[in-house]
Amino acid sequence: MTAEPAKGIWPPVATPFRADLSVDFDRFIAHCKRLLADGAHGLAVLGTTSEANSLDIEERQEVLLRVVAAGIAPEQLLPGTGAPSIGDAVRLSRLAVKLGMRGVLLLPPFYYKGVSDEGLFAFAAEVIQRVGDERLRVYLYNFPQMSALAWSPALVARLISAYPRTVVGLKDSSGDVAYVERLLAEHPGFAVFPSNEALLLPALKKGAAGCISATANTHVAVIRRLYDGWQGPNAEALHEVASRVRRAVQNYPFIPAVKAILAEREGRPDWLRIRPPLEPLDAKASAALLSALKNISA
Amino acid sequence: MTAEPAKGIWPPVATPFRADLSVDFDRFIAHCKRLLADGAHGLAVLGTTSEANSLDIEERQEVLLRVVAAGIAPEQLLPGTGAPSIGDAVRLSRLAVKLGMRGVLLLPPFYYKGVSDEGLFAFAAEVIQRVGDERLRVYLYNFPQMSALAWSPALVARLISAYPRTVVGLKDSSGDVAYVERLLAEHPGFAVFPSNEALLLPALKKGAAGCISATANTHVAVIRRLYDGWQGPNAEALHEVASRVRRAVQNYPFIPAVKAILAEREGRPDWLRIRPPLEPLDAKASAALLSALKNISA
Repeated sequence: MTAEPAKGIWPPVATPFRADLSVDFDRFIAHCKRLLADGAHGLAVLGTTSEANSLDIEERQEVLLRVVAAGIAPEQLLPGTGAPSIGDAVRLSRLAVKLGMRGVLLLPPFYYKGVSDEGLFAFAAEVIQRVGDERLRVYLYNFPQMSALAWSPALVARLISAYPRTVVGLKDSSGDVAYVERLLAEHPGFAVFPSNEALLLPALKKGAAGCISATANTHVAVIRRLYDGWQGPNAEALHEVASRVRRAVQNYPFIPAVKAILAEREGRPDWLRIRPPLEPLDAKASAALLSALKNISA
Repeated sequence: MTAEPAKGIWPPVATPFRADLSVDFDRFIAHCKRLLADGAHGLAVLGTTSEANSLDIEERQEVLLRVVAAGIAPEQLLPGTGAPSIGDAVRLSRLAVKLGMRGVLLLPPFYYKGVSDEGLFAFAAEVIQRVGDERLRVYLYNFPQMSALAWSPALVARLISAYPRTVVGLKDSSGDVAYVERLLAEHPGFAVFPSNEALLLPALKKGAAGCISATANTHVAVIRRLYDGWQGPNAEALHEVASRVRRAVQNYPFIPAVKAILAEREGRPDWLRIRPPLEPLDAKASAALLSALKNISA
């Protein structure tokens, strides 16, 4: 893994399934390559939008192996490797390091509730020490609405202090602007990625590294233009386009919404397949979503 | 797996760890055998109290293999095999069936939030169909405080209706008496296990099958006496002893509390080891807990 922290637009790549719900690796790789061609700086494979926690441990390892075997540069890969158990998180993180990937996105151990910062610190420390490789770069993944547990600012500070070369960034999916601003103010150079392109412009002004957004699966060029132009004369206009995308999509559950957009755009209804317990959008919601996006160029 | 549903007292067996936090299988097997000798009807290995979700997939498979290899009768084993992914839940459940175990305890897929009953039904149906073995017996594991998702009464009814030979029971850790009573009223013969020995007597009167309680790790004989005597003249007195155990323990997080009691009773402080993110009780809490239990015979 390279020492320089990631920056830019890193889509959490949606996962296409075959009729039997197995991963369709050929289409997955094609989607990865298209995202890079359309402007993604790298790929946050095995994220929430990827339904990573609906893939079993063997499938997640296969995704890492296949994406590198397909010729995608390891330094453009930032996979989610979090798991409730230290052992599974270590296994996936070690593989990412071995493959030379840019870093790993680490969820807190999401089965337990009411866990202390002390306990979460111990979990992260065990993962880092058991991977035991100075090439490891950890990006904390903060998504309390889904994982129930959060990487609090005090805990983030403690982890950076204990592992300054390893803990180099954070993806925030909480949408809490004050949280992101506090991390940026307290840790200059720490690579913070909001998950919401409508919050990207103000976050970039405070020093954010980029964006890891579900809708980067469908509108990566829109978000890339904002990222490239945020200090230029069109920044507000680019921000408005990105915000329109967000407003259109955020009324729906993100994963089926992203799949509905991809299915329509590629004329491939099989993009709608999703693993239980998630469900595809119903026809009415899908039509309303696609209609709301109609006048926004991808 | 046998056709007859489980009943009686099934401790969710606590997992002892070595200094490096690996599973201490010898002591684990010894604890299993002692619980059976002390009155357990069977063992709910790989439950929440077992820290099952802190064990990786390979360790969970090894627990299943080792416990049978140690000579414990498969029909006395009811392991937790739930996982956020269908694949991991199927892998563990298949192994349990292959080993001849009594059934499996199935958590809902606990990463996602706000999932519909339709989605949860599809998840359970996929697991059952992919295991694809008529010997499979599923006991739904309802613990919304931890898994965030619940097996609602309507969903339970739908699963029983779709898989009447397979979906034969439920463990309830919600503590919701009305929920348990409703299931018992609607599904005569369905094997419902409250997780709380203080709720066992009223539940038995309504037709409950038994109890799967964290404190059965430390007070299995107390709970067994209540189970054996609930229709006898001492029922209320036996209920009161079981309730005193519960009242003493329920002020503390259950997993470290159970380990603190076992450490003291066996004179083995290494029982206190617990995997992050969980933490052992501090000395003060531990002393207070042990003091509160002092006058209750195990």
